[in-house]
Amino acid sequence: MAAAIEIELASYCASVSSRARAASQLLAGLSGDIKNRWLIESARQIEQASTQIAAANAVDLANAPQYGLTDAEIDRLKLTPDRILQIASGLREIASLPDPVGEVIEGSTRPNGLQISKIRVPLGVVFFIYESRPNVTADAAGIAVKSGNAIILRGGKEASHSSQAIVEIMQSAAVDCGVPVDAVQLVNTTDREAVGQFLKLSQWIDLVIPRGGESLIRRVVAEATMPVLKHYDGNCHIFVDRNADVEMSIRVIENAKCQRMGVCNALESLVVHADLADRFLPLLAKKLASHSIEIRGDEEVQRLIPTAIAATESDWSREYLGPILSICVVNSLDAAIEHINKYSSRHTDAIMTTDLAAARRFVTLVDSAAVVVNASTRFNDGGQLGLGAEIGISTDKFHARGPCGLRELTTYKYVIYGDGHIRN
Amino acid sequence: MAAAIEIELASYCASVSSRARAASQLLAGLSGDIKNRWLIESARQIEQASTQIAAANAVDLANAPQYGLTDAEIDRLKLTPDRILQIASGLREIASLPDPVGEVIEGSTRPNGLQISKIRVPLGVVFFIYESRPNVTADAAGIAVKSGNAIILRGGKEASHSSQAIVEIMQSAAVDCGVPVDAVQLVNTTDREAVGQFLKLSQWIDLVIPRGGESLIRRVVAEATMPVLKHYDGNCHIFVDRNADVEMSIRVIENAKCQRMGVCNALESLVVHADLADRFLPLLAKKLASHSIEIRGDEEVQRLIPTAIAATESDWSREYLGPILSICVVNSLDAAIEHINKYSSRHTDAIMTTDLAAARRFVTLVDSAAVVVNASTRFNDGGQLGLGAEIGISTDKFHARGPCGLRELTTYKYVIYGDGHIRN
Repeated sequence: MAAAIEIELASYCASVSSRARAASQLLAGLSGDIKNRWLIESARQIEQASTQIAAANAVDLANAPQYGLTDAEIDRLKLTPDRILQIASGLREIASLPDPVGEVIEGSTRPNGLQISKIRVPLGVVFFIYESRPNVTADAAGIAVKSGNAIILRGGKEASHSSQAIVEIMQSAAVDCGVPVDAVQLVNTTDREAVGQFLKLSQWIDLVIPRGGESLIRRVVAEATMPVLKHYDGNCHIFVDRNADVEMSIRVIENAKCQRMGVCNALESLVVHADLADRFLPLLAKKLASHSIEIRGDEEVQRLIPTAIAATESDWSREYLGPILSICVVNSLDAAIEHINKYSSRHTDAIMTTDLAAARRFVTLVDSAAVVVNASTRFNDGGQLGLGAEIGISTDKFHARGPCGLRELTTYKYVIYGDGHIRN
Repeated sequence: MAAAIEIELASYCASVSSRARAASQLLAGLSGDIKNRWLIESARQIEQASTQIAAANAVDLANAPQYGLTDAEIDRLKLTPDRILQIASGLREIASLPDPVGEVIEGSTRPNGLQISKIRVPLGVVFFIYESRPNVTADAAGIAVKSGNAIILRGGKEASHSSQAIVEIMQSAAVDCGVPVDAVQLVNTTDREAVGQFLKLSQWIDLVIPRGGESLIRRVVAEATMPVLKHYDGNCHIFVDRNADVEMSIRVIENAKCQRMGVCNALESLVVHADLADRFLPLLAKKLASHSIEIRGDEEVQRLIPTAIAATESDWSREYLGPILSICVVNSLDAAIEHINKYSSRHTDAIMTTDLAAARRFVTLVDSAAVVVNASTRFNDGGQLGLGAEIGISTDKFHARGPCGLRELTTYKYVIYGDGHIRN
């Protein structure tokens, strides 16, 4: 019986993936006009179906207590009429972005007359694993198809009815607009084994993007037979250099730590130059106390901030996602760079300084996806950096680093035109 | 005893890799001038040490029979004075190429005044596995360091003395020029287990590039914990469309199949439009007979070419690397595209046609690293495409596709400058 269910699941996942592959081959030949028409039509139909979407969402909300969702999670799950309008306008925004497919990245005519172009093309099929916010369903589908890819959506069970309602509308708009209906598919089983099955199907799936807790992402990386676009966590640093503007630094640290604590680009660890520590840390401590932030520091920090508790070695690597900040004092810029390159999750690290040479050295030697000078770490975000739409953030160095939008879901091919050229 | 040797090997591989990582952190801050000076100084010292290199090579040549090398392999292994000069001039050519590191790929100033740049930076540490040609040792080291990466070289045992001599010179030149000596390291054990050890060390190694037989590459992909840049094989196609220029097509096919049979961009499979087959195939057969090429075809091909033998299903996927060509006849452009997308190894596929719409459709829908119109498949090569130097060819879609040179060994980071910007 268990074996029969397993075979059924494997065959379901293979069917979804091979249909996504077939859809992706059709998408590769589709004009930007058709993809944009689909995005705009999806937006229109989502607005029109606002009542049905809200009804589906009500089922998810009614089920929420049985999944043990927190109040904050229930709030994120909830689709008000206004939020449904936002989903639609998100799709219209994606339609308004430039089409990455077909972009001539570079090209040349060789001395023998052979004409070479490097042309941007879709990756193919994306398998996207995410959690409970239903607006992500529409966003991810829009970004994937706009960049010419078919997408297989594996959302959280908590939002399954809401996501199903949205995907059905986008599929119906696909039929209306000449987009293959299998361009967007929602996995209709909540069986945890389904993820493992999909991760085996590298012949049909080109990329997997897991979004969620670190344990989910580690499982996906361990099992995937295709590339994974991901970040595990965001242990983001700010280094306050000896010549930093104190008032500016406190303002930026307050923003980076306190504006939104539960996100990957929030500040988690502060590094302070010894020359400035005496003057700076007591002032900072006062500001952070007003936000009830717990400080975990090294000996020097504990000396300067009496309320600070002792940091352990593991604190330097931790992503708190809450009202805790680790702080250490260093004797030089290079010691700060070394500390950050050792403990950072290579997501976002910043320096506060008025010294141009220090800024240039920090920017060159800190090996992170985003390196920031005199601004909040919270700016490492697709929208803030001008990508227009974001499907995830990568802390890997391979393929794409930092926020990933339309272009990051593409690859390229060499296109070579000749007149019967042969090689000598 | 076996356990002790295993521990010793693991500690050796960890030491090589961690030193490569430390060197890569220094390389990240090195100017292009210093890297170029090292390349030119390495070239000079290689020319000067020609006699010692030839002596080391003589040891490898003397050992060659015990490794069972073929005459062709022994010829590739041999370093004549002229070939040693070529190694040196290869390094000078790499010095003359533009430095990829620090390139501003794109940038913008956001409405709030935040300045964003996407800057090209090195990947870090490259583990390169290759076979017996000793010139590849110098080439790969030059390409890696020019692009700011440390490299761990695992060459074939057949060329170990020659490679050792070359690496020692490049390390001595590194000391002279201020390049970290561990930027280029040669693995000094021929233990097969060493490869497995290195493939575990993703904390220090960012990328592995295996070059060699398909079984080696499959082993590396299965065991690697870091990204792999590779191609398994090159089952390259030419499609002769109904409107192709017959004389031009025969000339291009002859070149693609016969100019060099043992390489990955040689032609292995031909697809011919039925409307042209009667007229075309007998002429082509005559030309290929003059090169003693065996033809394996479908029924229509066997009817038109009496010497053709029956192709089996497996022939459509095979990379012969020798004097065999598979041929099939199809009824349409789309059937040709379908056949190629089904059987190609996505390396290089070409169309011969005078029909612009057919060329555009083929180029859009054939999903291969290089798609060629009216030219030989042999042009998919870093030198021919203008990359200047090549460390491998990728048939993957992730990160880099097609020939990989300096740029393909880089990633990027976002660099963000503000004046105390905070996020609202």
